[in-house]
Amino acid sequence: MNTKRVFFFGAGEAEGSEQMRNLLGGKGAGLADMTRLGLPVPPGFTISTEVCTYFYEHGETYPGSLSEEVDDALLRVERIMDRRFGDPQRPLLVSVRSGARASMPGMMDTVLNLGLNDATVQGLIDMGGEPRFAYDSYRRFVQMYGDVVLGLKPASKNEEDPFEVIIQRKKAEVEAIQDLDLSTDDLKDLVARFKAAIKSETGHSFPEDAREQLWGAIGAVFCSWNNDRAIAYRRLNDIPVEWGTAVNIQAMVFGNMGPRSGTGVAFTRNPATGERQPYGEYLMNAQGEDVVAGIRTPLPLSDLQHERPEVYDQLTSTFQRLEQHYREMQDVEFTIQDDKLWMLQTRSGKRTGFAAVRIAVEMAEEGLISEEEAIRRVNPEQLNHLLRPVFDPEEKRQAVAADGRLLAKGLNAGPGAACGKVVFHAVDAQEWKAKDQNVILVRIETSPEDIRGMHAAEGILTARGGMTSHAALVARQMGKVCVAGCSALRIDYAQSLMLVGDHTIRQGDVISIDGFTGEVILGELKTRPSEVVQVLIEGSLPADASIIYQKYEKLMSWADTYRRLRIRTNADQPDQSRNARAFGAEGIGLCRTEHMFFGGHRIDAMREMILAEDTPGREQALARLLPMQREDFIGIFRAMDGLPVTIRTLDPPLHEFLPHGDAGIQELAASMQIPAYRLKAKVEALRESNPMLGHRGCRLGIFYPEITAMQARAIVEAACIVAKEGVRVIPEIMIPVVFERRELQNQERIVRKVAEDVFAEQGIRVDYLVGTMIELPRAAITADQIAKNAEFFSFGTNDLTQTTLGISRDDAGSFLPYYVEHDIVPHDPFESIDSEGVGELMRIGVERGRKTRPELKVGICGEHGGDPATVEFCHEIGLDYVSCSPFRVPIARLAAARAALACRD
Amino acid sequence: MNTKRVFFFGAGEAEGSEQMRNLLGGKGAGLADMTRLGLPVPPGFTISTEVCTYFYEHGETYPGSLSEEVDDALLRVERIMDRRFGDPQRPLLVSVRSGARASMPGMMDTVLNLGLNDATVQGLIDMGGEPRFAYDSYRRFVQMYGDVVLGLKPASKNEEDPFEVIIQRKKAEVEAIQDLDLSTDDLKDLVARFKAAIKSETGHSFPEDAREQLWGAIGAVFCSWNNDRAIAYRRLNDIPVEWGTAVNIQAMVFGNMGPRSGTGVAFTRNPATGERQPYGEYLMNAQGEDVVAGIRTPLPLSDLQHERPEVYDQLTSTFQRLEQHYREMQDVEFTIQDDKLWMLQTRSGKRTGFAAVRIAVEMAEEGLISEEEAIRRVNPEQLNHLLRPVFDPEEKRQAVAADGRLLAKGLNAGPGAACGKVVFHAVDAQEWKAKDQNVILVRIETSPEDIRGMHAAEGILTARGGMTSHAALVARQMGKVCVAGCSALRIDYAQSLMLVGDHTIRQGDVISIDGFTGEVILGELKTRPSEVVQVLIEGSLPADASIIYQKYEKLMSWADTYRRLRIRTNADQPDQSRNARAFGAEGIGLCRTEHMFFGGHRIDAMREMILAEDTPGREQALARLLPMQREDFIGIFRAMDGLPVTIRTLDPPLHEFLPHGDAGIQELAASMQIPAYRLKAKVEALRESNPMLGHRGCRLGIFYPEITAMQARAIVEAACIVAKEGVRVIPEIMIPVVFERRELQNQERIVRKVAEDVFAEQGIRVDYLVGTMIELPRAAITADQIAKNAEFFSFGTNDLTQTTLGISRDDAGSFLPYYVEHDIVPHDPFESIDSEGVGELMRIGVERGRKTRPELKVGICGEHGGDPATVEFCHEIGLDYVSCSPFRVPIARLAAARAALACRD
Repeated sequence: MNTKRVFFFGAGEAEGSEQMRNLLGGKGAGLADMTRLGLPVPPGFTISTEVCTYFYEHGETYPGSLSEEVDDALLRVERIMDRRFGDPQRPLLVSVRSGARASMPGMMDTVLNLGLNDATVQGLIDMGGEPRFAYDSYRRFVQMYGDVVLGLKPASKNEEDPFEVIIQRKKAEVEAIQDLDLSTDDLKDLVARFKAAIKSETGHSFPEDAREQLWGAIGAVFCSWNNDRAIAYRRLNDIPVEWGTAVNIQAMVFGNMGPRSGTGVAFTRNPATGERQPYGEYLMNAQGEDVVAGIRTPLPLSDLQHERPEVYDQLTSTFQRLEQHYREMQDVEFTIQDDKLWMLQTRSGKRTGFAAVRIAVEMAEEGLISEEEAIRRVNPEQLNHLLRPVFDPEEKRQAVAADGRLLAKGLNAGPGAACGKVVFHAVDAQEWKAKDQNVILVRIETSPEDIRGMHAAEGILTARGGMTSHAALVARQMGKVCVAGCSALRIDYAQSLMLVGDHTIRQGDVISIDGFTGEVILGELKTRPSEVVQVLIEGSLPADASIIYQKYEKLMSWADTYRRLRIRTNADQPDQSRNARAFGAEGIGLCRTEHMFFGGHRIDAMREMILAEDTPGREQALARLLPMQREDFIGIFRAMDGLPVTIRTLDPPLHEFLPHGDAGIQELAASMQIPAYRLKAKVEALRESNPMLGHRGCRLGIFYPEITAMQARAIVEAACIVAKEGVRVIPEIMIPVVFERRELQNQERIVRKVAEDVFAEQGIRVDYLVGTMIELPRAAITADQIAKNAEFFSFGTNDLTQTTLGISRDDAGSFLPYYVEHDIVPHDPFESIDSEGVGELMRIGVERGRKTRPELKVGICGEHGGDPATVEFCHEIGLDYVSCSPFRVPIARLAAARAALACRD
Repeated sequence: MNTKRVFFFGAGEAEGSEQMRNLLGGKGAGLADMTRLGLPVPPGFTISTEVCTYFYEHGETYPGSLSEEVDDALLRVERIMDRRFGDPQRPLLVSVRSGARASMPGMMDTVLNLGLNDATVQGLIDMGGEPRFAYDSYRRFVQMYGDVVLGLKPASKNEEDPFEVIIQRKKAEVEAIQDLDLSTDDLKDLVARFKAAIKSETGHSFPEDAREQLWGAIGAVFCSWNNDRAIAYRRLNDIPVEWGTAVNIQAMVFGNMGPRSGTGVAFTRNPATGERQPYGEYLMNAQGEDVVAGIRTPLPLSDLQHERPEVYDQLTSTFQRLEQHYREMQDVEFTIQDDKLWMLQTRSGKRTGFAAVRIAVEMAEEGLISEEEAIRRVNPEQLNHLLRPVFDPEEKRQAVAADGRLLAKGLNAGPGAACGKVVFHAVDAQEWKAKDQNVILVRIETSPEDIRGMHAAEGILTARGGMTSHAALVARQMGKVCVAGCSALRIDYAQSLMLVGDHTIRQGDVISIDGFTGEVILGELKTRPSEVVQVLIEGSLPADASIIYQKYEKLMSWADTYRRLRIRTNADQPDQSRNARAFGAEGIGLCRTEHMFFGGHRIDAMREMILAEDTPGREQALARLLPMQREDFIGIFRAMDGLPVTIRTLDPPLHEFLPHGDAGIQELAASMQIPAYRLKAKVEALRESNPMLGHRGCRLGIFYPEITAMQARAIVEAACIVAKEGVRVIPEIMIPVVFERRELQNQERIVRKVAEDVFAEQGIRVDYLVGTMIELPRAAITADQIAKNAEFFSFGTNDLTQTTLGISRDDAGSFLPYYVEHDIVPHDPFESIDSEGVGELMRIGVERGRKTRPELKVGICGEHGGDPATVEFCHEIGLDYVSCSPFRVPIARLAAARAALACRD
């Protein structure tokens, strides 16, 4: 631990810097940096994140010397400001804000205007402040302090804020409509009423002593590191609890001093589209909280250019300094006090996937960053934004024009198109989602308490707040569709309905929201592919018509030059294969043959096979399946001309192909013209206690060699047929659920025998491989043995996770979410690889497999294959490829490039 | 490969020896050894097992020089015998026998009297042989050769032997009753008829040329290494296919030359009881096959002492030479030709568990072998014989005396008591056993084809054959109860019934057989503990009244001085605990608490807990369970005074405590006075797709901490209570189904908190440990992490096998037996540990666990813990203890000693 715990900044000098981000948090480091750059920053100091750690490890106490260090720093601030903290004549007021290493917007607590009391408020007036401004500040401070430090909050989500209740009552008494209608005396009275309410409701007196106020606020900020919403946010964003938060104490500047004062937030480039144009919002005569909280709808930054051109110039030149310094798009907070600009924060700006791609590519084009850096700048998951469907324009046009279904228009705060049932509370969003209902969360405005509900919703619609409101920021980061500030909505939480024009929308009604345009439309709308998808797959848009496609394409071409991992796709159909190829897939890593058995008459033949009493009966049914399977493979081989295609032999237990309910059994028996009792007996005989660990995979192929033989024949015949057409076909036949080399040996023998037969019949030979899934722990452990027969391995991480952790994915719902919430596991092991357990087995498997067969090709085809963290892990342990669903191929390509860069670092 | 392939022996000299057992097979090595010892052995030579390997690797051909080597050796035999092979004047006849490294009695083929043809048979007579003897030998040879080499066999199990059919027809024609009634001419005619039948049925002519006969027989013996029954035998006895068999060619001596000739088999000590007394059977004027096949019931060896005292003396002095030489009980075959003794085979004798223990201990007492060697001599599984139940003597007395239920009496060929349903065919025994029916396999006589059926049966009953008949030998080795030679039975295979006196016993009727006395009793009889069990557990027999107990006790005391592994037991009840202690258990390795929840009212409280809607409801129900659990623990702690007791917290999923069928649900709902639909809904909600991988083990304790808290309280309160009584109590609390350290941490915290509370309440402290099961692959892999919290590990190899191999034990019946039969797995991994897969994970778990915590105590508590091979493996990888069911404790003790000795070697 550092012995220095408090870091001063002010008047062009700072003890901290960007390099000390872990110690100072993002905000503290930014303030120190901006100070060093000579930008206008009110002086202040940062209490380091290590104090937070100490605080939690020592029963919420502080290191002994801290108060002395704080006093020293405060003295330096007092000197620069020529004011003194708690002094009735020239009072110094400060803000107390959290600031973690990673930005956690709105998750933790802030107190502004600290230092005010009945005496200092007069000093503020004496120094030339307007009495109304002084008491408005005092009122805000007591309200904030009462809420944040002393805990006077609404008791439940439906209750109103107790301070707002007092304000409303006061307004009614004096017949005021807006806050501004309240007089100085009214505000003075509010302060008194607030203090009385705090005392009566919490038992605590509001502290008049400035230092007591300060330490109360510091403690509250540290405590807020562990409030529910911060915990939820950290979990969603994988932020470790050990990081802790810093606390920033800074001299107040005032945006609410009058018409030449104001406050704003801005991005150095457009965070929605990435366009190179400052973008932001401001409010005159307001404090920062007014903008962020979305209570008043602010003005676009472009208005400032006309209203206060000299301030606007200060701002834009500051933006340039910041981008040159950070080489990154910045998100800043500023205050204007009497036409002077003060910078209160700078940090990397959150952005949509569109903006992330465009900014990264353009900054590289501008020479601000390297190609490698551009790759590092885009989180692979953000590519989802570029691939996400939009509404069908024609259907939407009709809905909007003719039907009068366009309900309202808000701000296009989070791009994409979403449909769902309306819910008005975050908990409902979570509950409905858990029942597989798509929902749109509709709120007057969102708050950090709504985080989990927002995560569960398809889209978010708010009545109040701007492009940088809480709803907008969080939605963009999550990649959720969001329409914000849609003021036409009249939301009634109590009745769970909203009025829009003459429509009444109740909970459960379906609406569609367009995050690209801000439109809110009644009923369901069809969605269609994104622009990038239109260019890539549909060819319905010329590549040069789409800027975002061009930037995407450039980024992906850079990624492809850096990555070492090959990216394949999981596809069972020719059209899927073609799509995946358009997305850049370099082969098929998993073609599940059983999906082919479900369509139309195929399931009949399959069932006939299952119900056959003997090998000849099965062979007869299989003979009917053979030409159908062969046709599928022909289509896939043609689509993947020149690329490898890994085909897995039959995997699921046979009972999956039979009906289970009595009605289904009756029906099938009738259609198959067999007695129902016979069918029922077969269904019973095939029933398993733990089907996941039952008679499936190669255990079927070993028991019924004729199944493997039929599949091998379909594959090899298809390969020979397309090879004669001139298609370059590279089949890889993959045996599932192997735990022992001799299983593979058994199946390999069947496959090779059939292949030789087919080659002789067809008069042509085709190269092919025989390999295996590694999806059981024993397969990984005995990989040295298995590699004697396997020409390739493919990790089936779904089953490998189930067996390694002893968790049935189907049943995990009863405890796994609890595990994730209570930090027993760091994340859902079915979403991102469990690197310590499953990953360790993979490592062992690769190592042992390659010991036997150094050239062994190894990939992964579980659903983890499209998860960026897993891709990185696969790169690390030396896999040759990952395979994922077609729409995740671009994500995997980018993740693979980032992994390669990370390893090079 | 050796360049020498043929090893001569004869006239006191031999090229081979006991040290070359692997190359010469057991029989070949024994013949060489006996020759060197100066014992009377007909000269001959052995073709090595390497030729067998070559034979299979080279498409059933021989190395080039083999025929030359055979000719050379044959020449040496001809010189010693002063006869020539194939010579019409002085023909040399030979036997051709198999001989593998391990004895495989009757599994492979033999041809006797080889060298006879229409010319040499006359030479045999010319040399002074009786014509009838000569033609009887010729008849036997053609019959054997036709069967073994040319393949003229019954087409199915119900068909009669085709040669026997011809003999019966001939007998009928000449009105002969016994074989001896057939004249020389009749025999001559039989030879002709046999040859004609061979030609017409197989298409092959019987070869008249002696060398052609010889090579035909050699090939047949090599081929018989891979016949079905040999394969089955190897599987049952874990004999690798690579070993191969040798072929022994030896000059014939004749036991069928007249009344001064004969043949016999004998053991140097009693193979049933171990008594130090030669034991065997012989038949005069017979060839060896007559004794082994059990066709004529032979005389006890003691009769020979009176009938042919000088031969008997030759025999007993030979026995002494052999025991001195081999330091082991021998099983020999001999032939008497004109009052001269010829030794044809010696090998270690198979024996019952009783005999194994007694012989080993007594040989050590005699100074013939060391204590260590005595330990090595007893296969731990054989101790089962000493522990196996016998019939309740009183019930049996009544059944035998009063009811007239005693059906018949045969030879007490395999000790023990068995009850079951009668079946008459080996396949039926297998099928019925697969349906969990206990069966007694009843046969006129058994043959190697019946091996699998014998394995499936509880006991074997035959109508023909002696103590060394096939049935008797195999049953004793398998540890099956056997009554042989019960001539009162009239068995009708076709109708599947047998007549005994005036009883008709049909397939499916229940009988009881006493392998100690040879009695066959109608209906079921209660069984009771063995003599050793009576001394040890019941104290109903004084220790000095039982010789076998004394030998057992001595062997076990020796074992205890050599073993390093501790042996614990799996016990859930005080009486089980006491039994286990009597068997030598040094603690409880697994006390399953859930078993305690099933009795009487406990299940009600358990169900109430499951159906409770909230924590207080659950706590209320748990409070009712607490005193009951505490009482159980008090009883167990008292019984295990001074020894550690490992208690596992709740393991099975909650639905196991609820009924599943509609009727059960209705009934329970009524008795609990709740609506059935509510109960049904709960049952539905708890249903799981793969319960084995579901919400169970610590996942329950984490989700419902009150369950763990209650169990911890019951354990610690019980410990405090008995500690105050002066009992030394060592509780070890074990958390199941852990895959991640934080799970254990969570449960440990609950346990330690409760323990501290209880200590404070009770005013006494008790040392205790908290540890975990390692039963999921991830637990083994992250053992270094888990050991941070675990004070001990116990491998739960049942679940570890299920997850590592991805096999549900409940469902494995559909393919695992197939896997075992087809050598895909070497044995059932649920019976003996899969050392390559599961074992490797255990090795990793031990290594990583001890890296974190060098003093970590590690054991095993899966059902594998009582399997000798697993015990050996556990010793090897450095476990501290194994835990098994009480009756397997002695087996584990012995296995542990053998493991320690094996490691020292």
